[in-house]
Amino acid sequence: MTRVAGCELCALAAASPSPAVFENDRFAVILVDDAGYPGFARVIWKDHVRETSDLPDADRLLLNDAVWKLELAVREVMAPLKVNVASLGNVVPHLHWHVIPRYADDAHFPAPVWAQAVRETPAAVLARRKALLPQLADAITRRFASG
Amino acid sequence: MTRVAGCELCALAAASPSPAVFENDRFAVILVDDAGYPGFARVIWKDHVRETSDLPDADRLLLNDAVWKLELAVREVMAPLKVNVASLGNVVPHLHWHVIPRYADDAHFPAPVWAQAVRETPAAVLARRKALLPQLADAITRRFASG
Repeated sequence: MTRVAGCELCALAAASPSPAVFENDRFAVILVDDAGYPGFARVIWKDHVRETSDLPDADRLLLNDAVWKLELAVREVMAPLKVNVASLGNVVPHLHWHVIPRYADDAHFPAPVWAQAVRETPAAVLARRKALLPQLADAITRRFASG
Repeated sequence: MTRVAGCELCALAAASPSPAVFENDRFAVILVDDAGYPGFARVIWKDHVRETSDLPDADRLLLNDAVWKLELAVREVMAPLKVNVASLGNVVPHLHWHVIPRYADDAHFPAPVWAQAVRETPAAVLARRKALLPQLADAITRRFASG
């Protein structure tokens, strides 16, 4: 396992106790603490790899599968209007995938969450979505534990 | 094959002659005409499906494989500093994946391309990258034709 000093995702992958909702020896699934986007989740590859296409085939398929399972869990619990899925890593070039539930009333819709915000989501709506997070954690655990 | 009237990606998938660099009965690969991002490419699923997780398993694996092959072709020819890969579709909810070569001198780096631009890439640099597009088209054709 390659670890790079100063890489925040290497640090997260090695953190004890782990902040992950689910993890195995290859990847960790975390819920992102983003006030405007409850249900925002990530799959973080543990090894310090730059691109999905740097992975050997078996690992790449495992990562694709993890992102797909996470998308299913987010859809099941958060019931978004749309799911956004992305691997960017320009700031932290350590392989990770974002899975983001999107709603017509979120701060950026229909633009990507990285664009300029165009509105504030009502606090009550965000609170209602945030209250679903324990259920989302359960759904992730269930979907990943079943292999 | 579901076609939705007014969906621009349904129209693109059905266009004759096809603008695709490569296509089969399931998906099309196109080069995006974005002046600031030569080498920006997309995999467009032909059927009008909303999310990757709406696909049956065999199709999902085929799409994952297509995005991976496209990432490899873009890396091979465009030699980016980083690749960005994303499925958003908030504006056009017809399944498609972006593969975007990123460089330290591009208009948004290190932010995602959907953020506020922070610089202008020198015209000569963009021209040099644009000149690689025939080679990128060849690399895509080669990688997809080989199955």
